[in-house]
Amino acid sequence: MRGVAWMSLGCLLVLASGCASSHRASADDPARGRSEAAASSKDPLPSWTEGATKAALLDFVERVTREGGPDFVPASERIAVFDNDGTLWSEQPLVAELAFVIDRVKEMAPQHPEWRTRQPFQGVLEGDVESVKASGKRGLMELFAATHAGMTTEQFERTVADWLVTARHPTLHRPYTDLVYQPMLELLALLRARGFKTFVVSGGDVGFMRPWMERVYGVPREQVVGSRVKLRYQDSGGAPSVLRLAELDLLDDGAGKPVGIEQGVGRRPLAAFGNSDGDFEMLEWTTSGAGPRLGLLVHHTDAEREWAYDREARVGKLARGLDEAPGRGWLVVDMRRDWKVIHPFERATPR
Amino acid sequence: MRGVAWMSLGCLLVLASGCASSHRASADDPARGRSEAAASSKDPLPSWTEGATKAALLDFVERVTREGGPDFVPASERIAVFDNDGTLWSEQPLVAELAFVIDRVKEMAPQHPEWRTRQPFQGVLEGDVESVKASGKRGLMELFAATHAGMTTEQFERTVADWLVTARHPTLHRPYTDLVYQPMLELLALLRARGFKTFVVSGGDVGFMRPWMERVYGVPREQVVGSRVKLRYQDSGGAPSVLRLAELDLLDDGAGKPVGIEQGVGRRPLAAFGNSDGDFEMLEWTTSGAGPRLGLLVHHTDAEREWAYDREARVGKLARGLDEAPGRGWLVVDMRRDWKVIHPFERATPR
Repeated sequence: MRGVAWMSLGCLLVLASGCASSHRASADDPARGRSEAAASSKDPLPSWTEGATKAALLDFVERVTREGGPDFVPASERIAVFDNDGTLWSEQPLVAELAFVIDRVKEMAPQHPEWRTRQPFQGVLEGDVESVKASGKRGLMELFAATHAGMTTEQFERTVADWLVTARHPTLHRPYTDLVYQPMLELLALLRARGFKTFVVSGGDVGFMRPWMERVYGVPREQVVGSRVKLRYQDSGGAPSVLRLAELDLLDDGAGKPVGIEQGVGRRPLAAFGNSDGDFEMLEWTTSGAGPRLGLLVHHTDAEREWAYDREARVGKLARGLDEAPGRGWLVVDMRRDWKVIHPFERATPR
Repeated sequence: MRGVAWMSLGCLLVLASGCASSHRASADDPARGRSEAAASSKDPLPSWTEGATKAALLDFVERVTREGGPDFVPASERIAVFDNDGTLWSEQPLVAELAFVIDRVKEMAPQHPEWRTRQPFQGVLEGDVESVKASGKRGLMELFAATHAGMTTEQFERTVADWLVTARHPTLHRPYTDLVYQPMLELLALLRARGFKTFVVSGGDVGFMRPWMERVYGVPREQVVGSRVKLRYQDSGGAPSVLRLAELDLLDDGAGKPVGIEQGVGRRPLAAFGNSDGDFEMLEWTTSGAGPRLGLLVHHTDAEREWAYDREARVGKLARGLDEAPGRGWLVVDMRRDWKVIHPFERATPR
């Protein structure tokens, strides 16, 4: 049931939008070292336009870290949680993990000749969206099981890491790890410089995120919370391993996010950052705590430099969040207005 | 099924040994600040007797932290995991969490008049071990559900914190948090001083451990991995909360420990510390990784200052670990010989 929901969330949508796959090319060096550079500059948020949003962010950080001040929060309680897809990196036209699923099916197909005539695999291999949709929830579970289960945790992470080296975004033709948001890297660095522990709390599979987040976001493996499959320890043969089973253990989305936070962090966050209604409960749980709290939604308003989408979006729908943000005191980033730069690679290009 | 196993592990055993309860008294100030003191002294392990075990510990720490050395490990990979009961604090004659279960049943009894004539509650209230045992697995699940579920995560943690203030060990008549092992506090502090991240990975319920481990061990909430119940987010009534359900989600013991580590840490540890066969797989998983690894078992050999138990123990059984430690290169602490001091409070008493 949960596996179904997990796939519904992403794969159904992307398949409906054309079953786009990522293109693959030779590797180049992915994003790194940017956050450090940003943190050491005088303005800790140089890619944020001066205005109410930036001022509110800086004010919050200042208030909770000013020793002796009325809103001071001890460092051990400075927990900040960030959604990933659409909050830290681009999620259009398809979430990266779904490109991974599609690419994996294509890559594994030679070992599975039966897939050529069996749905939903046949549909993925032929780019035939309607057939995949027709295979229903059971078909989606099969795609999930084939690409995310039946291997050890270490094998899965190696596969993800290898994929990221060559996978390219279908329209921007860059490594996915290039498509992170420069303003958010600066925010992560600022929070860490002020004693916050930064966590990622995302609907993505935790094994899909851990291999690269430390390098790209500065978020260590143990601070990544995600959806997860059930695991089984195997000690046979003198080389113990942990096997990924084809059963979802946690869907870390919507009401699953506070659950993931309670399990994996164990402390109500001080600040939460998201971009879609799947982050609503995470922001609600965070900002309903006592004392100063911060909730922020990234509103994708920039069709020219990134994408513009919200209420009608099939990926990253944001409706309830927009409606309730003002009443709940949540900040809403207007990407077009608030961010001078979207992706780090733009900084090399004069605008 | 898992809940049954969880209870079997502890409650059945303690009930069989006489249904001992903890005595309660007025609060005094629990243990604190010791590890810092130890870390700043010249010998980082002053409570460890000079000898092979201490030398091997110091040598391991030195090797993996010596930059440029053949065994150097970057700080981000320096993960150390510690079992709790019997490894960081005393677990005889009953694990503290089971004393909590018994005390909670007694405390809640006035609101449950039906418990006076219903097993297993009647047995707990009357100290009638045989009746409790006769209620079987279902009875044990009921004790678990009554004391560990049906409340929010925050309510449960408050209950635990309140209990710890007044609960006293049944024979030592001290707060449970006094019964931590001074040599292990020193080891925790040494590892942290050398760039390790220290985690607790214990069979206890994570909500039972998080409220006090930062204060007592210096291990923050987000670095505590334990058994856990399923959770459900509730946003009704404008005051969101996370409800603890009467269903076990992970039994963090035996083969469940590598699973807990993969989920909650996401990195194979460099060093693992345990004391019973419930820690076997954790040590196995840790020490079968590539490069330098450390496994250590605390062998309870000191009937005079603490307890002496291993192969025949009903709580904290250690048999396979003793048999296989030499072949696997695991250190075995002989408490009587290797530890000058067991509990911090002894230091004030001349020996």
